[in-house]
Amino acid sequence: MLRTFAVAALVSMAGLAHAQTEPFDLGQDNREIAQALGQAALDSDLAYEITESLTTEVGPRLAGTPQEARARDWAVEMLEELAFENVRIEPFELDLWTRGHSVYEEVAITAPYPQELYAISLGGAGATPEGGLEAEVVFFDSYDALLASDADEDALEGKLVFVNDRMVASRTGEGYGWANRKRRDAWVLAEDRGALGVLIRSVGTSTNRFAHTGMMSFPDGRRPDIPALAVSAPDADQLERLHEMGETVSITMRTYAGWRGEVMSGNVIAEITGSEAPDEIVIIGAHLDSWDTATGALDDGAGVGIVTAAARLIAESGHRPRRTIRVVLFGAEEVGLVGARAYANARMEDGTVGDHIIGSESDFGAREVWRLRSNVGEHALPEIDAIHRELQSLGLVRGDNSGGGGPDMIPLQYMGVPMVRLEQNGEDYFEFHHTPNDTFDKIVPEEMAQNVAAWTMMVWLLANSETDFRPQAPQAEASE
Amino acid sequence: MLRTFAVAALVSMAGLAHAQTEPFDLGQDNREIAQALGQAALDSDLAYEITESLTTEVGPRLAGTPQEARARDWAVEMLEELAFENVRIEPFELDLWTRGHSVYEEVAITAPYPQELYAISLGGAGATPEGGLEAEVVFFDSYDALLASDADEDALEGKLVFVNDRMVASRTGEGYGWANRKRRDAWVLAEDRGALGVLIRSVGTSTNRFAHTGMMSFPDGRRPDIPALAVSAPDADQLERLHEMGETVSITMRTYAGWRGEVMSGNVIAEITGSEAPDEIVIIGAHLDSWDTATGALDDGAGVGIVTAAARLIAESGHRPRRTIRVVLFGAEEVGLVGARAYANARMEDGTVGDHIIGSESDFGAREVWRLRSNVGEHALPEIDAIHRELQSLGLVRGDNSGGGGPDMIPLQYMGVPMVRLEQNGEDYFEFHHTPNDTFDKIVPEEMAQNVAAWTMMVWLLANSETDFRPQAPQAEASE
Repeated sequence: MLRTFAVAALVSMAGLAHAQTEPFDLGQDNREIAQALGQAALDSDLAYEITESLTTEVGPRLAGTPQEARARDWAVEMLEELAFENVRIEPFELDLWTRGHSVYEEVAITAPYPQELYAISLGGAGATPEGGLEAEVVFFDSYDALLASDADEDALEGKLVFVNDRMVASRTGEGYGWANRKRRDAWVLAEDRGALGVLIRSVGTSTNRFAHTGMMSFPDGRRPDIPALAVSAPDADQLERLHEMGETVSITMRTYAGWRGEVMSGNVIAEITGSEAPDEIVIIGAHLDSWDTATGALDDGAGVGIVTAAARLIAESGHRPRRTIRVVLFGAEEVGLVGARAYANARMEDGTVGDHIIGSESDFGAREVWRLRSNVGEHALPEIDAIHRELQSLGLVRGDNSGGGGPDMIPLQYMGVPMVRLEQNGEDYFEFHHTPNDTFDKIVPEEMAQNVAAWTMMVWLLANSETDFRPQAPQAEASE
Repeated sequence: MLRTFAVAALVSMAGLAHAQTEPFDLGQDNREIAQALGQAALDSDLAYEITESLTTEVGPRLAGTPQEARARDWAVEMLEELAFENVRIEPFELDLWTRGHSVYEEVAITAPYPQELYAISLGGAGATPEGGLEAEVVFFDSYDALLASDADEDALEGKLVFVNDRMVASRTGEGYGWANRKRRDAWVLAEDRGALGVLIRSVGTSTNRFAHTGMMSFPDGRRPDIPALAVSAPDADQLERLHEMGETVSITMRTYAGWRGEVMSGNVIAEITGSEAPDEIVIIGAHLDSWDTATGALDDGAGVGIVTAAARLIAESGHRPRRTIRVVLFGAEEVGLVGARAYANARMEDGTVGDHIIGSESDFGAREVWRLRSNVGEHALPEIDAIHRELQSLGLVRGDNSGGGGPDMIPLQYMGVPMVRLEQNGEDYFEFHHTPNDTFDKIVPEEMAQNVAAWTMMVWLLANSETDFRPQAPQAEASE
């Protein structure tokens, strides 16, 4: 098992940056417990079973829907069965957006060559007029081309805008942000110039015929009146070919998407109370909601399984950690980190942000963890490096100290909470992301178990640490 | 280019079987022309362009629909542009079956855990009652289990039958026939025992969320009154998990499929007239129709491109072959080889079956050709072996002499026409087969060019041959 992930030759370099520092001593007992926990995690299929249960017994769970409420009930029952402490739901309000129809939306080229397209409304989009609409397409090869196209103010009036940016696949998934600008913001430019709707090439890396949904941005709270859809990559290819042939393309569509008013969502919280410093919190998270088109196995059923199993393996080890481990299964991540903001704001209000010693989320699928990045005070780097050394046999390299903790950790990180992240191989994550293909069969049990091993060891070592990981004010020079 | 497909080490064994025979001499000039044609094919992107044009400018083209008629018009125009002779449409009648709705059909689990399913009607299926139906599922792990389940006559009454056979992926695609029994025949068993409908795990090898459609069988011309659908593999997994949990599953569905009466279809025919034996026909084929869910790039736009380009490359070489090369782009293959039967019957009527010296079809995608099989008289094997030797540098092994010529060649083969087949690598063919994913982007131009090279060389050598490839009656012993 360990052999599969052994890339020991790669891991020796990160330590060099801190070579001048005395290696941090995690303590022999502590290290032995961590290694035993890691082995137990490799032998466990708990994470896989949790994810199977969530995707099978709940399935799709769009934020704010009865399905997401069912996911919370499922989570409470599961966490109580696993003997977590202080299991509770923290509710929050949410503006509901839904597709208003089945996962199939009617979109077709009508000219020059009629053909149905696979397309899907983006989160937050408006609907077509009742009965649908038909209009000519104005083709932009990139979001930048759309941005630069405002010389002719009337060019988009009464038209459909199509934006064709492609996304680059990578281990880190870093092509996502750049390619995603069109998903987030193209609607504003289009609507302001009188366009009837927006279509984008799906933000994703597959050649699959499924379109990738995902949330748009709403600057200053503004929401679109026009429909906005992603089309599958092969269908975007078709539009591109017709454009390159010099053809004028017309598209018809009928969609029902829209905002439905205020509903309740919630975060589900559970703990293992710390033995010596119960008020010091190591927060680990994942999100419970998913898009409506699939069962959200990779996004983020896997994360729910991984962090829950890691905490449970520690709880059942017979070794209670010094600090409290808090598992938060966030609601409403996909629709704009609504649960994460609610959680952070509630901690601001109850004055416990500062109790959060360090945070981390699993929300990037279920492929193997390959890198440990951090965002902690300089003084704490030797300890993170030492934790990394414990994980080396799982195949992890040590990343830099400018990382985040994951999407739902962003609000806490803004409030000063230090972060670590176990980065997963994202090479094929955007093949499945936000499509109907995000289903349980895409998870490889052995890769998932490696995740849980890394998480279990890291969380144990952080929860058993005595270190304040926040950046420290410069020390006054010792007086002479 | 040739290097890519060079597996010279593999190809030397097939010849051993005929080692006792004198090697057949194709003639030096003839061989040189063949090699030059092969090189020209490797340098050409004509097949790729033809397939791009068909999939872009026509798109989906279900047998008997206006889209298939548009494909025939497209084919006539394309073949005339490429300067083929005797370009014509041979019409035939067809009973039309359609989905009656967009490519998305409404199917969902209602109990125990509600969830939409990706499913699609099988060709020939009936519709649900207006407004849909909901019923309990009776789960069969295999078609054989369904066959063996008739002890309880009433067990299927008012239920939905689900059959869960999996398909094995292979280079030869030979898992298809076995897995396909449930698609073809399960409806008869279900309907006879009072079931309200049939669902099958898609006949395919992918873990994609798309369902694979395909035609059912109609013993003695009987047609189903009940709906019959394939569900995607991940959705079949979901049904399987629920079954294994001991749950009773209910499904609701609403479909509109049905038979619509008699319409016209047709085969498109074009020729390169032979210089010395114009009445001797080397027939090469592909099919023009596709399923309605995709643009049929692999099935069989690629075949249309490959055989047309091969013939065109010969026509433009300046070397006219002895025999006539006839390209037939068949209609209505997917719905039961209707065009192929019409073609063969018409040849029976006009008395020209015997003029068909040898036949072959390209209808298995666009991956590389790896094997040459044949079905010719024993006396002609040294010549086929010699032709194979000319193709060895493309990476082909020599298969046995019990092959067919491809689906649309079956009726001619029954009538005694000898066959050869350039077998393509089918390892991933059933990932895409009969799903919305069968689109142009799945074709690799270099692999397609290798196909065309093999076809061009083989067709040239067959069309320039003087051999009758039919099995010969035993010669009377020379009198002493």
